[in-house]
Amino acid sequence: MLPEPRLARWLQRVETRLEAALPAPDQSPQHLHRAMRHAVLGGGKRLRPLLVYAAGEATGAGEILLDAPAAAVELVHAFSLVHDDLPAMDDDSLRRGRPTVHVAFDEATAILAGDALQALAFSVLAESPADPALRVAWLQSLAQATGARGMCGGQALDMAGTGAALDLAGLERLHALKTGALIRSAVRMGALAGGADTATLARLDEYAAALGLAFQIRDDILDIEADSAQLGKTAGKDQAQEKSTYPALLGMDGAKARLHEQAEKTKAALGPLGGRADALRRLAEFAVARAS
Amino acid sequence: MLPEPRLARWLQRVETRLEAALPAPDQSPQHLHRAMRHAVLGGGKRLRPLLVYAAGEATGAGEILLDAPAAAVELVHAFSLVHDDLPAMDDDSLRRGRPTVHVAFDEATAILAGDALQALAFSVLAESPADPALRVAWLQSLAQATGARGMCGGQALDMAGTGAALDLAGLERLHALKTGALIRSAVRMGALAGGADTATLARLDEYAAALGLAFQIRDDILDIEADSAQLGKTAGKDQAQEKSTYPALLGMDGAKARLHEQAEKTKAALGPLGGRADALRRLAEFAVARAS
Repeated sequence: MLPEPRLARWLQRVETRLEAALPAPDQSPQHLHRAMRHAVLGGGKRLRPLLVYAAGEATGAGEILLDAPAAAVELVHAFSLVHDDLPAMDDDSLRRGRPTVHVAFDEATAILAGDALQALAFSVLAESPADPALRVAWLQSLAQATGARGMCGGQALDMAGTGAALDLAGLERLHALKTGALIRSAVRMGALAGGADTATLARLDEYAAALGLAFQIRDDILDIEADSAQLGKTAGKDQAQEKSTYPALLGMDGAKARLHEQAEKTKAALGPLGGRADALRRLAEFAVARAS
Repeated sequence: MLPEPRLARWLQRVETRLEAALPAPDQSPQHLHRAMRHAVLGGGKRLRPLLVYAAGEATGAGEILLDAPAAAVELVHAFSLVHDDLPAMDDDSLRRGRPTVHVAFDEATAILAGDALQALAFSVLAESPADPALRVAWLQSLAQATGARGMCGGQALDMAGTGAALDLAGLERLHALKTGALIRSAVRMGALAGGADTATLARLDEYAAALGLAFQIRDDILDIEADSAQLGKTAGKDQAQEKSTYPALLGMDGAKARLHEQAEKTKAALGPLGGRADALRRLAEFAVARAS
């Protein structure tokens, strides 16, 4: 997705860190470990880890310091996908072009693999070589972004809103929690590693909030305009489940205008950071233009 | 269960901390918040929080420092019960004398409430007023005890072992992970707060490992000898699910002998700690003799 050598290097770094953190597939309980690996190592865009590295670069953090938060945020993301795909939730059988965990293994294993991936995310942060005060700041950010006041809260709103009509404010609140919280935490963890001051943290948080919304609007558009093979997950699902979406609320043109608006916001927020924020700019462009 | 004024005070402390940590029931998303509160505030023995306070007392930690790990370990325990009770897992409808979370709410909410409770446990530790190095040590211990190398791994072994015959070594390994890891983490977190040296940590870990096994053997015995009303959960479940248990492997007399053996081990481990370890001794007696 991102041809720049630096981004390719970051992708490799986080892959190595994830591989090292995950339990070995031939170790007991094998089915649990294999399910965890299936959930994490099966590809994926790795947007959140890349945001950690890019925010670290924008604020002058060393790459070695960023491996732990990059891996941790992806582990939380992967756990949430495993649980979201369960029959009692979105009931999906296809993810990243492969069977979902409860299909490839079974429901109980999928529940436990998700739980263990969440715990692993916090282990990775707690055991990183960073200064304890930095580790604690990361842990605060990621735990907050994961829980009831973040991703899980957003998913609960999403389940409650399925089949019900949300207005634009309701939809944006849902997405601010469901996908926005984790994206903001990724950027914040990178910036904390770089020792960013309060003003820079606030500016980067504006960027991350706009990027999160843009990512979600693009998701809604792709759910209509792309097919399952292209997405690697089931297309047309929002309409089938009667979910509120940007195209449904604003029309396709309105949704695209709103997407453009968020893209502009990301640029404005990064303005004063100059060339150091180029990778963050590139990731925002990707979120807006991506085809899968 | 424990009439001593000190234990009653600890029970009240952890209840207050849990209440403060949980999201308000009238805040959106209400169903998620209510499910989380249902899971945590519905009684329970609070053995793990009491172990945190008692291990802290044995090593000279201030009580205020212990509230966060006491609440955190109970949040992890509560999350595991919510997920264990799900239809795809143990499929149980009764817990602590009340409907389980997926019965009182729905399955999706139960999955999300469990996920959010796990995240909340780590938030509580990360945001506690303790020194960052101590917070990081707690977080390492609790995350490790929760994940694939701890509780989740044990539960995966338990699911895989249902209907299959385990030998005694296999059964003890299962319980060392499924219930033992969290009990050991509770004792370790309390002792870390007291600044215990390596020898004391090792001694207390011996105590905790024996207590964990004793607790589980007593659980297996109660599943046969007690009724559901007394337990507040479904009795006779092990046999119905063809689970390996101590009475099944060793006979009822053999199981009771093994229970007595573990009780003796807890006493031996605490010997050199003198009167400071009295609360830990009292909790071991409770684990061995409890009627529910």
